[in-house]
Amino acid sequence: MIRLFVTDRLGSGAEIAPTPDQARYLTSVMRRGVGDELALFNGADGEWRARIGEVSKRGCTLSVEARLRAQETGPDLDLIVALVKRARLETIVEKAAELGARRVRLIVTRFTNADHARVERLRAIAVEAAEQTGRLDVPEIQPPLALDRLLDDWPAGRSLMFCDEAGEARPALEALAKAPADTRADAPWAVLIGPEGGFAADERARLRSLDHVTPVTLGPRILRADTAAISALSLWQAALGDWRRYGPTP
Amino acid sequence: MIRLFVTDRLGSGAEIAPTPDQARYLTSVMRRGVGDELALFNGADGEWRARIGEVSKRGCTLSVEARLRAQETGPDLDLIVALVKRARLETIVEKAAELGARRVRLIVTRFTNADHARVERLRAIAVEAAEQTGRLDVPEIQPPLALDRLLDDWPAGRSLMFCDEAGEARPALEALAKAPADTRADAPWAVLIGPEGGFAADERARLRSLDHVTPVTLGPRILRADTAAISALSLWQAALGDWRRYGPTP
Repeated sequence: MIRLFVTDRLGSGAEIAPTPDQARYLTSVMRRGVGDELALFNGADGEWRARIGEVSKRGCTLSVEARLRAQETGPDLDLIVALVKRARLETIVEKAAELGARRVRLIVTRFTNADHARVERLRAIAVEAAEQTGRLDVPEIQPPLALDRLLDDWPAGRSLMFCDEAGEARPALEALAKAPADTRADAPWAVLIGPEGGFAADERARLRSLDHVTPVTLGPRILRADTAAISALSLWQAALGDWRRYGPTP
Repeated sequence: MIRLFVTDRLGSGAEIAPTPDQARYLTSVMRRGVGDELALFNGADGEWRARIGEVSKRGCTLSVEARLRAQETGPDLDLIVALVKRARLETIVEKAAELGARRVRLIVTRFTNADHARVERLRAIAVEAAEQTGRLDVPEIQPPLALDRLLDDWPAGRSLMFCDEAGEARPALEALAKAPADTRADAPWAVLIGPEGGFAADERARLRSLDHVTPVTLGPRILRADTAAISALSLWQAALGDWRRYGPTP
């Protein structure tokens, strides 16, 4: 079933006007017509079954019928990632949505070549990936910020898994297993992935000096930024996130 | 330092003629010239420092000097992956090289749309990824085979982590932790990733009936094939492979 993210409130009997892009996707790309079903979510009201009402040249209408799933949100996990080349950054955002990150925070570090990103384009990628992966919210994309500023304003109570490519940290699963007990039960976390050139010595030193930081190593081979992001999010979800609990359904 | 994979034997004093593509990459793309250093590996003799000798219109020569690292090979891990769209399959091969798979075995399943792949192109991608990730071998790419044939001829002693998207298996880390003890110490394994449409009911039933198969679930969200492959290889390496041991160096 096609799933679309909308910004309207969802409830039985609501009539929704999808965006022109969504209407075109439904009727022209996917060839859906009057009476066909789809699912809608908005990040707040759960997932709802809807049906295509009128179709015109200007678009279509969607009639909301019944709730399919109650709203649920994954773990409070941020992916913090240095700006890397556009194609890889877009992959990272797509995968962060699939792997259940709640936010993607873009950062600029000493060895980052760029200082801006096409945030609106990344948001559109996050929406599309959320629609396809079946989640009921869309990861927030935050515009680029300097690493130092990010660390200056670090939110109290959020732990940070720092993927340290210098190979001087414990293996990731071992390090996460030794994280303080109160950070292992649904507490807020973030995963930090540096630029392709790695972190500068003073950036590493600052990160490693912070109490809320758990440095980890992702094996003996050099990983590209997109691979490192996917690996780290997967390990975090499996060790501390919602992959731990998700198993056989009755 | 630039790393190149060659098929020649490597030893002190050897003179190597790189392929035309490698010579062009060295001299035209990377602007290296006579006397510049690079590293060579061939999957058998370790990694060697070499230096560019002559440069001519027809190519260049490489003089092998000293061994930088002894030969080493990662865990005996196969990635078995159903044919998916070309771009995603190419990504999967690149990531399998980064994540230390020894072989990539392509399969055709009931819900696979294609029955052939550009194996030579995938081999070239594997070589390039191996060069960049720092490993001393290149994953072997095996041409497509029917899943049933693969299972008929399954090699004795190799365990299989079956990523079952139906959500009826244990969480991956829990399942791997419960795998028989004799399969957890450097024993041969494989990771199996299905096509985007999933496995057919009889394929799943056969897989789940086999003693050497460990079915696992990768969380509550739908993952694309490339994401599932990267996640599964990362979890396997972290739980049973060489990410377990790789930590602080003296």
